[in-house]
Amino acid sequence: VTRTLSEFGLIAKYFRPLATHKGALALTDDACVLPQAAGWDTVVTTDALTAGVHFLPDDPPKLIARKALGVNLSDLAAKGALPVGYLLALALPHSVDEAWLALFADGLSESQQAYGLSLLGGDTTATPGPLTIAITAIGRVPSGTMVRRSGAKPGDHVFVSGTIGDAAAGLAILQGAPAVEADAAFLIERYRVPRPRVFLGPTLRGIASAALDVSDGLLADLGHIGEASGVRIVVAADSVPRSHALKRFDPDGLVRAVTAGDDYEIAFTTINPDLATRALPASEVPITRIGRVEPGEGVVLVDGEGREIPISRAGFTHF
Amino acid sequence: VTRTLSEFGLIAKYFRPLATHKGALALTDDACVLPQAAGWDTVVTTDALTAGVHFLPDDPPKLIARKALGVNLSDLAAKGALPVGYLLALALPHSVDEAWLALFADGLSESQQAYGLSLLGGDTTATPGPLTIAITAIGRVPSGTMVRRSGAKPGDHVFVSGTIGDAAAGLAILQGAPAVEADAAFLIERYRVPRPRVFLGPTLRGIASAALDVSDGLLADLGHIGEASGVRIVVAADSVPRSHALKRFDPDGLVRAVTAGDDYEIAFTTINPDLATRALPASEVPITRIGRVEPGEGVVLVDGEGREIPISRAGFTHF
Repeated sequence: VTRTLSEFGLIAKYFRPLATHKGALALTDDACVLPQAAGWDTVVTTDALTAGVHFLPDDPPKLIARKALGVNLSDLAAKGALPVGYLLALALPHSVDEAWLALFADGLSESQQAYGLSLLGGDTTATPGPLTIAITAIGRVPSGTMVRRSGAKPGDHVFVSGTIGDAAAGLAILQGAPAVEADAAFLIERYRVPRPRVFLGPTLRGIASAALDVSDGLLADLGHIGEASGVRIVVAADSVPRSHALKRFDPDGLVRAVTAGDDYEIAFTTINPDLATRALPASEVPITRIGRVEPGEGVVLVDGEGREIPISRAGFTHF
Repeated sequence: VTRTLSEFGLIAKYFRPLATHKGALALTDDACVLPQAAGWDTVVTTDALTAGVHFLPDDPPKLIARKALGVNLSDLAAKGALPVGYLLALALPHSVDEAWLALFADGLSESQQAYGLSLLGGDTTATPGPLTIAITAIGRVPSGTMVRRSGAKPGDHVFVSGTIGDAAAGLAILQGAPAVEADAAFLIERYRVPRPRVFLGPTLRGIASAALDVSDGLLADLGHIGEASGVRIVVAADSVPRSHALKRFDPDGLVRAVTAGDDYEIAFTTINPDLATRALPASEVPITRIGRVEPGEGVVLVDGEGREIPISRAGFTHF
């Protein structure tokens, strides 16, 4: 495979059209420049994806692009931040050709249009290893309103957006597990293309006492809120939202669903469940009350009679 | 090689102590939060380094860390920005052990202390490929004062900081070229540890009409200024500053010096050469006048009698 364009040529052809923000300077400078304004905070996050680890090397390039951007936008959303743009550091193996890059840029463009953001800067290098995509996403919130992990208080209710466990099932299907065709398509899409809750996130400001995005697994991530807030989190197993497709694919897989990763939903706590449910329906996704915050520490899953369901492995770590 | 700590454990042990900025939230949240203020612009840049491409896999971990941070700080400096902090996305092969990480964190810490900045956030994942380090550096300038590539005008003078060509000679020596011992040590250090001109950069605001950091090679990078500004740049070969070590190692290597990469000096243009030389000595590095800006396009190297010196290859591209 050969690339006929230089690094500069590649940037000009495929990435410059994505740099719609004036401060990106059409990617012709060493840095981007973003005006500050009194009354705002800048919120910044970074997440890198590697072929063979975070996506399958032969996944469609558009979906890889949307996933790489999506996991970062998911972090911003969980903090209540509206995205402004992102920087992209791309390490390309020689097997990546221009056709791949064109589709990858298309995927970025689709996400940019869906969520209203701009490419702000980047770096493109060659690598002898697998394709690696490091994205830094930048957003903003009114001063002091970023939703942290550390604000949950005993008495708060616990909510989660969307449905839980779909992505892990999608990966299992890609790896050979049998599934009904329509369910397989839905679950694989949920694995390949996280839908960051960009429009839900900002509505959480002033409502959520703590929030994060569910990437390591629902219980593990609620454990992060519990640890940061110094509280215990009790999740009612029966209330965890699972899609119809997931229930058909894995009827008895509740524990698998709450310990699997890559959901990219938002979990949050709030003292006022009515406000949460009233204020949020305008966003793009349903939310479900799944538990409560108590004094203490740790996270537990309980059945309909309040008995703790044993969990052998709470969540997923990369090592 | 085994790592006994989880991803979370690694972050807590080696990276949390580097997160000195309050807005980094001790790396315990999904994002960092930085207050905005009227009268300032945020300046952001990203650069990734891959083992075997941008550094040698057995380079000392402290030097790799300082280089990875240095190339990003160099971009901020060339824009006149003072650094605030950085985010670090680290893709680690299994061969990287805790001893390596401890030294790598030491290197980051040294640079942080030297230049006054904080780790703000990051992401640590495993990779089956080479070590990849993607850094996004964040700085700030008073509103509207970022120095761009596009402001050079006919009549301006061209300056560069420090000396040119050392890093490429250092790499050649590492690859087996013979050199006197003391010169070898100096030139290899210049290759391994770029010294970003962090304190020079902000003094360029209001003086430089255009600037960038010299990473692709002096002529190639001045060509970027020429292209962005719509001007021609004429460099006087005799005036290009070369170190004594470089002159001994490669007496006839002027063209090699101006077409090699990785200098990480700052090149800039200004209408007022006296102001430039008067205002700048307080910074850490000498500056040298090397040429002039003319109407036209392109970049040329001329000898003492104004004759153009032919260049077969202006600079270095990664592909």
